[in-house]
Amino acid sequence: MKLDILGCYAATPRSLTNPTSQVLTMQNQMFLIDCGEGTQVQLRKNKIKFGKIEHIFISHLHGDHFYGLIGLISTFMLLNREKELHVYGPKGIKEVILLQLKLSKAWTPYPLYFHELTSTQPEKIYENEKLSVETIPLKHRVYTNGFLFKEKQGDRKLLVEEARKYKIDVALFKSLKKGKDVISEEGKLIKNELVTESGDAPKSYAFCSDTVFSEEIIPQLSNIDVLYHESTFLQEQLKLTDPTKHSTAMQAATIAKQANVKQLILGHYSTRYPDIKLFKIEAEQVFPNVLLAEDGKTLEF
Amino acid sequence: MKLDILGCYAATPRSLTNPTSQVLTMQNQMFLIDCGEGTQVQLRKNKIKFGKIEHIFISHLHGDHFYGLIGLISTFMLLNREKELHVYGPKGIKEVILLQLKLSKAWTPYPLYFHELTSTQPEKIYENEKLSVETIPLKHRVYTNGFLFKEKQGDRKLLVEEARKYKIDVALFKSLKKGKDVISEEGKLIKNELVTESGDAPKSYAFCSDTVFSEEIIPQLSNIDVLYHESTFLQEQLKLTDPTKHSTAMQAATIAKQANVKQLILGHYSTRYPDIKLFKIEAEQVFPNVLLAEDGKTLEF
Repeated sequence: MKLDILGCYAATPRSLTNPTSQVLTMQNQMFLIDCGEGTQVQLRKNKIKFGKIEHIFISHLHGDHFYGLIGLISTFMLLNREKELHVYGPKGIKEVILLQLKLSKAWTPYPLYFHELTSTQPEKIYENEKLSVETIPLKHRVYTNGFLFKEKQGDRKLLVEEARKYKIDVALFKSLKKGKDVISEEGKLIKNELVTESGDAPKSYAFCSDTVFSEEIIPQLSNIDVLYHESTFLQEQLKLTDPTKHSTAMQAATIAKQANVKQLILGHYSTRYPDIKLFKIEAEQVFPNVLLAEDGKTLEF
Repeated sequence: MKLDILGCYAATPRSLTNPTSQVLTMQNQMFLIDCGEGTQVQLRKNKIKFGKIEHIFISHLHGDHFYGLIGLISTFMLLNREKELHVYGPKGIKEVILLQLKLSKAWTPYPLYFHELTSTQPEKIYENEKLSVETIPLKHRVYTNGFLFKEKQGDRKLLVEEARKYKIDVALFKSLKKGKDVISEEGKLIKNELVTESGDAPKSYAFCSDTVFSEEIIPQLSNIDVLYHESTFLQEQLKLTDPTKHSTAMQAATIAKQANVKQLILGHYSTRYPDIKLFKIEAEQVFPNVLLAEDGKTLEF
């Protein structure tokens, strides 16, 4: 599991900082999460093979999270993309993208699907053999969702030497990996656990931005591996969190602690702070495993 | 007259090149012409006091000329702009900007006026005491206008020593600058030309992008000072100009020559060419005074 941070600052793009966008690579699939202005340039600068992206998740329709989407969709057009592209985001996203294409008399040569979200309850919005994605309803000034990516339990690991010892035909190895018991060449029933061990633990990643501090999301985040939680402010500016519906670093850490996640990543910093290290220091007062998102940083888990 | 090139490449923004946008400073007013994705970052990188911009001119609704507009309008909002902002562009521009503001439940705290263009004839769209702006109808795949900025003839220059010699009261100096004859303290009629000389010649700048080669624009460009004319291609790719409705460097130079302009600036280069010097070499075969636009370059005239 790999996370490429393309942008992790709040509000307006500046010379050296970018609004929210990140690429999650899970089970060899690339997922783009949010797409602020300049995302396509950040994808290029970070040498990400962005033609491989098939699913884009947009948390909410504030500009710093989606103004780069129409540009990326247009660039896929210029690059003669043929592969399907799926966009998941709040109701309205389809209208605004299609209006812009219409005004430029353009259409995508590739199938472009919109999955508009309106539910205020968690819902599974994507699933394949290896992973699933569900929404995490957040509390912000406009309708907003976080996204929870969960790998499924993979195959069991075959202990080849053991399997040979029990004289199991190679043709049955696939069944063993799927956890089934098999019959050996000698006609004996071989219990699966004798010749396999459990596979890698499935990983999970939650993206929660933008949101005011809300304990309601904790059950959904319980025991996940990695949580990206916005921390627009430090506690010093706590009074700004309610009117703006944003969180502090300490509040993000509180969610991480109560949900018992393994790793917290902070981001969506207000550009008022010259030194983002302060976010880490503040969060670590509550929760030990804190990483700071930084534009251009790749995190592997 | 000063021109800051923020971006001058066709199609998609890349790590080192930006789509079309430029700031013309004329008579101490700043005009933004086109606004591709990333324009607001380019404004910051080039240290342009962009809060001073009051008029934005959008040539057409292809993404590389206007996808940065909503971001800039939003940033003006975050910066608590109070000053009026006027946007001139093809019909549809108002709908797409207002839809995006509506979806983010935002409104501008400053008055935002849209001047939607539909005419296929040149029309004066802005005028004040010192200059005027008119459209230059262009031929592209969608409805497109260039823009012609013309200074008005300024005041005459007062020859102070001469005026004193003729015993003209200081209170009449303003009338002299306006070209009027005056009566001296001795009661004599003093002809204006005796105590003034003509002021600076008014300057003119035309922005023509995007367009196929079209001699119809030549009369309007006749004898202007500076012409920015798109040159997406070199003559080698001449066959691409008709389907895409773009021009070559040589065609841009032909327009410049036939219109007898003083200076040609080339831009809107296709990103297929690794070396833009070839555009200058090609254009100079037809017209001598050629400058190459480059992102981040400031040109003074």
